[in-house]
Amino acid sequence: MSALGDALLTLAHVVEPGDQRVGTLVDEIGAIEVVSRIHDGSIRNRDHDALKARLAAVNLDEIHARADAVGARIIARGDPEWPSQLDDLEVARPFVLWVIGSPNLRLAALKSVAIIGARASTPYGEHIAREWSSQLSAQGWMVASGGAYGIDAAAHRGVLSAGGVTTCVLATGVDVAYPRAHSELLARICDMGLLVSESPLGAQARRQRFLTRNRIIAALTRATVVVEAALRSGTTSTANAAFALNRPVLAVPGPVTSPMSAGCHHLIREQLATVASAWSDIPEILGALATVPAVAVQEQARQIDALDGVAARVFDAFPRARAIDQHSLLVQSGVGVKDLLGALSTLEMLGFIARIDDGWSRVRG
Amino acid sequence: MSALGDALLTLAHVVEPGDQRVGTLVDEIGAIEVVSRIHDGSIRNRDHDALKARLAAVNLDEIHARADAVGARIIARGDPEWPSQLDDLEVARPFVLWVIGSPNLRLAALKSVAIIGARASTPYGEHIAREWSSQLSAQGWMVASGGAYGIDAAAHRGVLSAGGVTTCVLATGVDVAYPRAHSELLARICDMGLLVSESPLGAQARRQRFLTRNRIIAALTRATVVVEAALRSGTTSTANAAFALNRPVLAVPGPVTSPMSAGCHHLIREQLATVASAWSDIPEILGALATVPAVAVQEQARQIDALDGVAARVFDAFPRARAIDQHSLLVQSGVGVKDLLGALSTLEMLGFIARIDDGWSRVRG
Repeated sequence: MSALGDALLTLAHVVEPGDQRVGTLVDEIGAIEVVSRIHDGSIRNRDHDALKARLAAVNLDEIHARADAVGARIIARGDPEWPSQLDDLEVARPFVLWVIGSPNLRLAALKSVAIIGARASTPYGEHIAREWSSQLSAQGWMVASGGAYGIDAAAHRGVLSAGGVTTCVLATGVDVAYPRAHSELLARICDMGLLVSESPLGAQARRQRFLTRNRIIAALTRATVVVEAALRSGTTSTANAAFALNRPVLAVPGPVTSPMSAGCHHLIREQLATVASAWSDIPEILGALATVPAVAVQEQARQIDALDGVAARVFDAFPRARAIDQHSLLVQSGVGVKDLLGALSTLEMLGFIARIDDGWSRVRG
Repeated sequence: MSALGDALLTLAHVVEPGDQRVGTLVDEIGAIEVVSRIHDGSIRNRDHDALKARLAAVNLDEIHARADAVGARIIARGDPEWPSQLDDLEVARPFVLWVIGSPNLRLAALKSVAIIGARASTPYGEHIAREWSSQLSAQGWMVASGGAYGIDAAAHRGVLSAGGVTTCVLATGVDVAYPRAHSELLARICDMGLLVSESPLGAQARRQRFLTRNRIIAALTRATVVVEAALRSGTTSTANAAFALNRPVLAVPGPVTSPMSAGCHHLIREQLATVASAWSDIPEILGALATVPAVAVQEQARQIDALDGVAARVFDAFPRARAIDQHSLLVQSGVGVKDLLGALSTLEMLGFIARIDDGWSRVRG
């Protein structure tokens, strides 16, 4: 990692997520200088003793070794896999992200939507979350959510059932299964999709971390869909963050007799959200917007650099004029199953390949 | 009836409801002159032969006798009981209305709301229509609807169960039970509330009459609430009429999986309607507006002229400082049961009296 990357990784262990005061200073004088000022005590900050104590405890070698041990990669601001949407958070953007999973986060986020909602969801809301996620996933959309009980879990499961890419943005470290009852779900997400967090490995659940995490879900994706929410709920914080970022917010209406739809109706009435009554409303509303990243993708597609090594190897293994099944791809490319699945997702999202019957085929263009 | 009243009543038999061409001419040269021009054939109109033939068949004595026979009164534009809201329809306003029922239509319409929706309603929509109508009625709101199957019927029934005043605006003559299966419901409405139509007695159901009728529901009331509606349904025509009249339109969201809520979601998404998620949203949205008629009512209240003879007699029968039950009122006022109920509704809506336990009491003020 570069000196800048090391400084950002250090700050991620020293500063609370979303701290705008330190974030502003980093933008002014740079991460390396901020770390140095924390070190020599010259930073003006009420918490400077705490910051200095935390800094003293940072051991970058250990941090990298621990990430390697759990199969996580660390992506710092400006790295090739950094999702540039997060820069819309400005001084509140994360310093680094820990990521587990094969797909390329930056590319996955180009055509992505957040599907979120209440933990105390109803069968109606869970049905919608599962169904819409599955449909959007089948159309090549990455679906992000927060891994919580209820709507979040239903959204992730809908994508998994469609064999697509789902991203779970955690409020804990990516190696912490939270809620514990979701360890199996999180394991499946990390097999097929991505686990993402700005909190260091081992970070436990804290109320404040859920609120700061919500801004990442909102910023990472092109639109946020609220499926069910009570009035004045945590879900509203993600919707508000998305609204503040000028991201479209959609809310799913439901029976007015259901308290779990009251938050959605409130968002609609206050014109903080538009009505979403079918999954297809989302690509429709994003229509004009969605073409922007598509163009960027096509440009990137011309540069082989846009593909990471594994994806390039897998793409090279494709025959020019006919379909190929997954087993043959494994043999031809020589990459592992998990890497293959990640590469296929990336290539599909970029429009290089398409599913055909039981296999895959290059897209002519 | 005056010569003007006779001319308007004649036009109601000769011209199709909502005919804006004739309506414009009436505003320009007056109803009496229009009748005279139809008579002498000097009116420029493609249909002038049909108009003349119909005019020849008009027998005012018979028309009045027939109205007396079915207990209907005829209210012409500008009559004391004419609901002035209808004048917002401008050249498309009715010439006259046939009305059956004790309450004063003009006063009832001052604090009124239309609750309408699909014939092919769901139990969810019927529950909402019944419950909200009942609650609004208990708060002194007159609820108008169209007497159709489904949501309309549920709205009327909700009011009846609360002992309030509901108005059914018919597309047929007020003496025609349509749909036939609703004869009992219509009989109950006309016992406790009002049947209203601009179509002559005996007029049968015609598709066009339902569309022209819808504009009366929209104009008569202060706001229109759409409880359930399919996409592109007749209900939408009432909502559009209300919107065109600058009346607030509210739509009740429902499950996105229900086709009967699709029309409501469409109205909300297109910002033709605001979200209604509780009955109390209606008085809230009408808040500022609702005080306008209230002030007018208070002014009228000071003039004994505002009360028709029966209401004045009933009010006089109230003791100054204590409550009185219905039986004592019957005895004291000497009016019939049906007249008494109508007068009580009027007096309650005007804020003269209030329900107390099993009886009634003057409102001090």
